[in-house]
Amino acid sequence: MTVLDDTPNGAREERAGRQMTSVAKALQLLDAFRKARADMSLSELARRADVPKSTAFRLLAELEQSGFVARNGTKYRLGLSCFELGARYSMCRPNGLRDTASHFLSHLHTATGLTAHLAVLDGPEILHVEKVQGPNNPVVLTMPGQRHPASCTALGKALLAFGDSEGVRTALDAGLPRFTPHSITDPRRFMSELKRIRESGVAYNRQELSRELVCVAAPIIVHGTIEAAVSVSGPTAGVRWDRTEMLVRRAAADISAARGRNTSSQI
Amino acid sequence: MTVLDDTPNGAREERAGRQMTSVAKALQLLDAFRKARADMSLSELARRADVPKSTAFRLLAELEQSGFVARNGTKYRLGLSCFELGARYSMCRPNGLRDTASHFLSHLHTATGLTAHLAVLDGPEILHVEKVQGPNNPVVLTMPGQRHPASCTALGKALLAFGDSEGVRTALDAGLPRFTPHSITDPRRFMSELKRIRESGVAYNRQELSRELVCVAAPIIVHGTIEAAVSVSGPTAGVRWDRTEMLVRRAAADISAARGRNTSSQI
Repeated sequence: MTVLDDTPNGAREERAGRQMTSVAKALQLLDAFRKARADMSLSELARRADVPKSTAFRLLAELEQSGFVARNGTKYRLGLSCFELGARYSMCRPNGLRDTASHFLSHLHTATGLTAHLAVLDGPEILHVEKVQGPNNPVVLTMPGQRHPASCTALGKALLAFGDSEGVRTALDAGLPRFTPHSITDPRRFMSELKRIRESGVAYNRQELSRELVCVAAPIIVHGTIEAAVSVSGPTAGVRWDRTEMLVRRAAADISAARGRNTSSQI
Repeated sequence: MTVLDDTPNGAREERAGRQMTSVAKALQLLDAFRKARADMSLSELARRADVPKSTAFRLLAELEQSGFVARNGTKYRLGLSCFELGARYSMCRPNGLRDTASHFLSHLHTATGLTAHLAVLDGPEILHVEKVQGPNNPVVLTMPGQRHPASCTALGKALLAFGDSEGVRTALDAGLPRFTPHSITDPRRFMSELKRIRESGVAYNRQELSRELVCVAAPIIVHGTIEAAVSVSGPTAGVRWDRTEMLVRRAAADISAARGRNTSSQI
């Protein structure tokens, strides 16, 4: 990732220890947008994708022609084709998780006035699927498609507590990161926390990811298997968390029931 | 698109009249998911992408390795990387159109109990950006990322009426398709309809796309330029459209104002 731009192409590919195909390099260029700014220069993209600048230029022209990237002045950004395809991922399709949950997420956001999230577990991380945020909410720096370590989020803790032991082991193996002094980094304390969540049915994140935010999450369980989690995030002061917790529980139960009815047509 | 599977590779490429690169073929395979079922066999994908089956097999393996496609038994589907990248398209990012509108769309859906949509204009078509549908609504066969001819939707008519004359010409050049006996297919009648929409500030689709649905839309205008449109769809009977129209107008005005405040940080 820190390869200099003037490294000779041959040396770079040798160092990478593999002969990558053009297709793999093109996909790596697209992938470089995953953890980066919206707009990137040719140099930055080539560096992030670890592809020689001349190759990147040629491949970006192909990606642009197919609508997978677009140019904004001298910068590149993701193109409309990415949006159109991404929105066709199974959980976004009619009767998929996001489609079914959107109604209940809207109600939850409207009833609380706070930021509502829907997420799934992927390895030791949560993947945000949907988010509804109000114009007056404190800034919650998340967006659908983004990931966070599961262990320091209410969504992740709910997903781990009601998931299988392998999920918990994966999270512990990945390490319990410290974002604030409130982050739980001791594995034994973390296991007690998961036990408490199983007993109460809801997970809290009390300033564990950000000092400014508290979050409460509940699991979406379909035919006995955890599928996702729903949450509400708000500021540390001025929120009636008892009422909010009740609304999150209800949203999770409603989505679980709706998903249960939909599984025959699940795609 | 209707090339037979047993056509020799050379003949097929010759007939296509171009020497496509591997990257272009790989992107064409991804693109084949745009207007198709969620899961496709190798044969179907190769046929839809107009790529020889053996080439498709090799390229799909590369796409699978990078997470752009996934396998489900013997079928292929879009992979998680597509979702993660698609969700990073500029209008989905924090302070982008979808992020800003989601709060108002949630309120609109909750207040009406009907299906709320957000869409932009792209050539003679509308592109759905967001959708909130309730579990008891009549089936509205749309999903974000999907397109419809602008001329027979309330969203499209609102976008055309408040857009420039080039947009209207593009739509007329594409033709005014007939989906139901209510579709407006006469260009002069269509121009009168757009005039009426400019005067009233809202657009209606009265069973023009589907016999079962009525839809009302209003434009999102930011600093004098139309950016998107918001709508509510519902059944032909049992909906108080006067009240619904008022709520759609308000949502459009609120999103326009919020977008106006956000344009400094627009991405």
